[in-house]
Amino acid sequence: MATLLRDRAAFSADMMRVFSDESLLAAALQFEAALATAEAAEGVIPAQAAERIRALCANPGIDIAALAEDAAHAGTLAIPLVGHLRARSQDAACIHLGATSQDVADTALMLQAKDAAGLVVRDLGLMSKSLADLARIHADTPMLGRTLLQAALPISFGLKAANWMMSIDATLLRFRHEMGRGVALQFGGATGTRAGLDGKGAAIAARMAAELGLACPPLPWQARRDGIAGLAAALAIITGTIGKIARDIALLAQGEVAEAFEPHVPGRGGSSAMAHKRNPTGCQIALSAALRTPGLAATIFASMAQEHERGLGGWQAEAPVLAELFCLTHGAITAMLPVLAALDIDPARMAENLRAADVGTDMGESASLVAAALTQRDQTIED
Amino acid sequence: MATLLRDRAAFSADMMRVFSDESLLAAALQFEAALATAEAAEGVIPAQAAERIRALCANPGIDIAALAEDAAHAGTLAIPLVGHLRARSQDAACIHLGATSQDVADTALMLQAKDAAGLVVRDLGLMSKSLADLARIHADTPMLGRTLLQAALPISFGLKAANWMMSIDATLLRFRHEMGRGVALQFGGATGTRAGLDGKGAAIAARMAAELGLACPPLPWQARRDGIAGLAAALAIITGTIGKIARDIALLAQGEVAEAFEPHVPGRGGSSAMAHKRNPTGCQIALSAALRTPGLAATIFASMAQEHERGLGGWQAEAPVLAELFCLTHGAITAMLPVLAALDIDPARMAENLRAADVGTDMGESASLVAAALTQRDQTIED
Amino acid sequence: MATLLRDRAAFSADMMRVFSDESLLAAALQFEAALATAEAAEGVIPAQAAERIRALCANPGIDIAALAEDAAHAGTLAIPLVGHLRARSQDAACIHLGATSQDVADTALMLQAKDAAGLVVRDLGLMSKSLADLARIHADTPMLGRTLLQAALPISFGLKAANWMMSIDATLLRFRHEMGRGVALQFGGATGTRAGLDGKGAAIAARMAAELGLACPPLPWQARRDGIAGLAAALAIITGTIGKIARDIALLAQGEVAEAFEPHVPGRGGSSAMAHKRNPTGCQIALSAALRTPGLAATIFASMAQEHERGLGGWQAEAPVLAELFCLTHGAITAMLPVLAALDIDPARMAENLRAADVGTDMGESASLVAAALTQRDQTIED
Amino acid sequence: MATLLRDRAAFSADMMRVFSDESLLAAALQFEAALATAEAAEGVIPAQAAERIRALCANPGIDIAALAEDAAHAGTLAIPLVGHLRARSQDAACIHLGATSQDVADTALMLQAKDAAGLVVRDLGLMSKSLADLARIHADTPMLGRTLLQAALPISFGLKAANWMMSIDATLLRFRHEMGRGVALQFGGATGTRAGLDGKGAAIAARMAAELGLACPPLPWQARRDGIAGLAAALAIITGTIGKIARDIALLAQGEVAEAFEPHVPGRGGSSAMAHKRNPTGCQIALSAALRTPGLAATIFASMAQEHERGLGGWQAEAPVLAELFCLTHGAITAMLPVLAALDIDPARMAENLRAADVGTDMGESASLVAAALTQRDQTIED
Repeated sequence: MATLLRDRAAFSADMMRVFSDESLLAAALQFEAALATAEAAEGVIPAQAAERIRALCANPGIDIAALAEDAAHAGTLAIPLVGHLRARSQDAACIHLGATSQDVADTALMLQAKDAAGLVVRDLGLMSKSLADLARIHADTPMLGRTLLQAALPISFGLKAANWMMSIDATLLRFRHEMGRGVALQFGGATGTRAGLDGKGAAIAARMAAELGLACPPLPWQARRDGIAGLAAALAIITGTIGKIARDIALLAQGEVAEAFEPHVPGRGGSSAMAHKRNPTGCQIALSAALRTPGLAATIFASMAQEHERGLGGWQAEAPVLAELFCLTHGAITAMLPVLAALDIDPARMAENLRAADVGTDMGESASLVAAALTQRDQTIED
Repeated sequence: MATLLRDRAAFSADMMRVFSDESLLAAALQFEAALATAEAAEGVIPAQAAERIRALCANPGIDIAALAEDAAHAGTLAIPLVGHLRARSQDAACIHLGATSQDVADTALMLQAKDAAGLVVRDLGLMSKSLADLARIHADTPMLGRTLLQAALPISFGLKAANWMMSIDATLLRFRHEMGRGVALQFGGATGTRAGLDGKGAAIAARMAAELGLACPPLPWQARRDGIAGLAAALAIITGTIGKIARDIALLAQGEVAEAFEPHVPGRGGSSAMAHKRNPTGCQIALSAALRTPGLAATIFASMAQEHERGLGGWQAEAPVLAELFCLTHGAITAMLPVLAALDIDPARMAENLRAADVGTDMGESASLVAAALTQRDQTIED
Repeated sequence: MATLLRDRAAFSADMMRVFSDESLLAAALQFEAALATAEAAEGVIPAQAAERIRALCANPGIDIAALAEDAAHAGTLAIPLVGHLRARSQDAACIHLGATSQDVADTALMLQAKDAAGLVVRDLGLMSKSLADLARIHADTPMLGRTLLQAALPISFGLKAANWMMSIDATLLRFRHEMGRGVALQFGGATGTRAGLDGKGAAIAARMAAELGLACPPLPWQARRDGIAGLAAALAIITGTIGKIARDIALLAQGEVAEAFEPHVPGRGGSSAMAHKRNPTGCQIALSAALRTPGLAATIFASMAQEHERGLGGWQAEAPVLAELFCLTHGAITAMLPVLAALDIDPARMAENLRAADVGTDMGESASLVAAALTQRDQTIED
Repeated sequence: MATLLRDRAAFSADMMRVFSDESLLAAALQFEAALATAEAAEGVIPAQAAERIRALCANPGIDIAALAEDAAHAGTLAIPLVGHLRARSQDAACIHLGATSQDVADTALMLQAKDAAGLVVRDLGLMSKSLADLARIHADTPMLGRTLLQAALPISFGLKAANWMMSIDATLLRFRHEMGRGVALQFGGATGTRAGLDGKGAAIAARMAAELGLACPPLPWQARRDGIAGLAAALAIITGTIGKIARDIALLAQGEVAEAFEPHVPGRGGSSAMAHKRNPTGCQIALSAALRTPGLAATIFASMAQEHERGLGGWQAEAPVLAELFCLTHGAITAMLPVLAALDIDPARMAENLRAADVGTDMGESASLVAAALTQRDQTIED
């Protein structure tokens, strides 16, 4: 369970907002409003009813804590939410018509995921840019290459940064693909047949998807969870990639190595016991996130074997876990972005450690490899 | 990230309270107060200072949201917390003396774990009792045994319940052991040497542990995380055990089987699309928890390889994950306790399904096996 | 550790061959041969030396058990393998020139992955075809839709099959993408700089990749593991998807439901205690695989934070785990392919259970949804 | 899937033997022999039949590869195994009487687990002893304490070793408890009722358990999997603990730190690209194992929700995963035991790094903490 004191450091404020109770409620109401509007457009409910429902959804007068208690008791958010709306409406029968609880829950999650993805894409792009700068500037800066935590042969620091950059770009590409496929409207009714809509189900779905800015697959996906699993995987791989960068920097920042450091930020990275310390706090957050995301992605994979037309337990497990994956991933990005944008590098110490290792000075094709990586980036990424 | 609307159904209100921000802050302050008192008793700080610190900790005037922002910036809760206390105290140098951030964080987590464990032990004991009743009452109630989801040979329902009971008892026993070993004071200072305490470290630790009701291992455990891993495992195994019971009941509650049902609770288990439905909501919560706990326990295991005297990333990952394990586990217990206390069983239908399967009526040693299980329970469990 | 008696049921014979010791050794030798040939073509070693090395790799006279002992002692396969080759060659200095152990290990894994992917793609395609047939044939076959393991509203069996098909197609698409990106040559030398090759490293890499049929990224990827993570995720998602199909069929095959069964195969699905039983053995294998793959994918994600230019522990963990993911995934496919190709369906019983549930007969837009799914399939999949 | 070339380094030869096909077959035959003997002793089958069955089990003439194919086809090992025995026996009806496939499979796994546990307990005990020696010898050897991978305050190396030792001892204790509870006979027949044995089931079980050296719980445990889950957890926690030690040593062995090294072993830890390297191969194996075990333990936890009297998929997943956990855990122990028994420490360099960090020389209560840890060890552990 998340609390501010424990989780605020691991998450970003922006992402906490995306997955707040307020945002979830707003997304659920957006679903109901879009549904009414689409049904009116297809002549399934009266246009005035749709307008009144829309107005009610914009101003529903809901107390979140009370709604949460009711939802916990009912076993689903939609029942008390729809009950609340119907009790305040002259169009009770037109509200939530043809929809089921999972339609609201899954679509609301997707609306949150769309906003969350925007943050991830934006900030991962910025991270890639910082890394491209590091690669370019330090294409010829010699340092010791290290394998199995032992001195190996020379590399350039730019080559290290180019490798970081290429991973980030590759994970961003995968994430975009998964978003494109996976962030989709769910609208199927009780068993995914769109019954009770006079055969207008597909048209209503298309209208809703257009209004909500979501993809519209040919079938409702209430029991096909590969899209969510793909998103979860893409997030875990992003965080793992950032974890690798964080581990490298934390190792370089060791006192005995002293080649690179997180930028100094007043009040950050101190110790309650030792005033002299400057801890790699950004790396700590990223490494912590990279430890937590694999198990969460595995949970989503393990939830896939859902029973029949709507699973018991499996799909209920997904939403909080996907939310946590987004929060941890963006937390890691947010922690490392300023670190990489202003990484404090000591080329003199790099040179010194390289000399001390006595492994020569041949950086091989480091510079041309960096150039090749930057060329590929220019061809595939728009900043 | 947890929200009320998404997580309230999965967690219990009691457990959310144990792991709330308020409880965490109270536990952290309890640590600082106990530290001052113990240090005064050992003559390391003046007695009056300790009394004033204690009073301050009882009434610190802290805004949690602001503290969370400061903690997120600093990378540790203790720095702004201790800063806040020192700024309001004439005994600044006596506050947090000889302690470090992790001492506060780990001990606060353990204080919460102690309370959390109380809830788990209490309610798991009640569940075991309900199961013992079911086993006793139905020791001779015939039903179809099913293996690989196919009809097999007859059993008694009491034998099924006795198996459930034995698993619960075994997991409760393991959990008690792990609590006894793992719920311990952490007090080591910057690197676990208890420096700066005039050699009074061990005595101070013993006093603190006594006041806080925690075990006191011979060495501080800031880089030995097997105790937390043991707790995590014990919780995951409890939830897996309850998941098995929930799966059985959900399968028995299928319309075509119809042998056992969750008790009817007004407003629970309905459908937003189908008024006739009575969903196994307790089972759903337990199965969902059982899907989520394995990955969380794995996260704690994966965090164990922590660097040197305090890890980077690993230990920071543990606290929110352990909190979530407690919440999900108690959520599963809380969901299934009323189900098992009032399970709605249809022996006639059991008999009918058994006849239809045409596998005879020999229940073997079902009744004596139930008796053996109950005897063992009487010898090992106190209700 | 895999044994024949325990694992033969879970894996396919074809896939066991792909990941056998013999295949691994052959792949490692293929790497060394391609390296020599490419280096000769770029003038880095004499052409005759390359020919002799190639001949030696074709006929190296290696005892696998002895090599395994030496590799275990050395901590890497390449050292004893290259030692063996050099000891039998007049071109010792031309063997493995500019390469390092990980180059051999990663490229050999990728060669195996390429073969493994061929099996997965072929058989998943066949599965999709069987599912399309089921969807088409049963587009209008009524059955009970079930949600939360309770009776809900009617669907057609074709709609259920169409959903299965769409997931399989989506996971196949993801897998193809990941293969295209991830199955790449690794050739970087000690620290990924391609030192010691007279600036011919990129050209040599391009020639090797062409000969071996692998992608050639601009930089060696020895410390960028997102490609392997992407493959692992795609495999886990395939298996999860098949697990869902298996769970549905196992539930339909319950004696009390009796709507669909695995085809009868003499000698399969029996019980050592009950002669009358016909167990869903294909579903069992698929469900077992779906339980095992999430943790394995999580392991690969957790391994990503690899240190510097070659990790300690992380990359060594990947190869056996990726091999196991391929084996389990293809095992699940192989188990379910004959089940889906000859699924034994009882439409009369479906109709009867539907009537008994008393939820009407309205299948909503089932038929047109099936048609939409089949249309999308026709547009995106080539059989 | 395990192969010699990939897995021999990660596993120990001893443990591979314990989990070999030959051992599994021997264990399965041991079950059948013990069953016949116990049934004869209880008068359920004739004594001569039992003797003949025992003789047959001692010399069954089975081809493992062929049996594996048959088992894969049948979906269970017991069917072809029992079929083979019955075809060669005049006592066909007395073989496997009252038992089912899972009885053989689970009990055989437990017999292997008992042998495996012997290796773990023996070698973990040796490791503890080496660590106790290091703690004692270096109780006052000053070195830099490091937190969050940064210089912190001084400790003694003995304190570090004492912490390692305490974790090992604690994990060994947990493992012993889990073995004592979990390594038990499984004998329940088709649905765990011990039908068809004239009420002699409990007595037969007691005799079998005594002969096989296994615990005998009051009920068969075919659908109660908490014991296996406890074993899996204990193994994962052992490996995590060893992973922590390995990480510390690998960090100390970095060229820039150079305070401790794995002992030099000819031919171990070399590089195929760099002759000068001495890689921490033992640490590599342990860290790799520590990455792989969490996901495997999670798999076992996730398998717990098994259906009714014998699960579909869940229990079939456990045996290979538990075997792998034992192999990886003992592989990690075997890799680190010689490292810790002959750790190459450089106290001069420790002192130098400590001076360079400029954090004073106060080791606090390091020495008395070491003494306290050793005292506790003396009171609880027998070497």
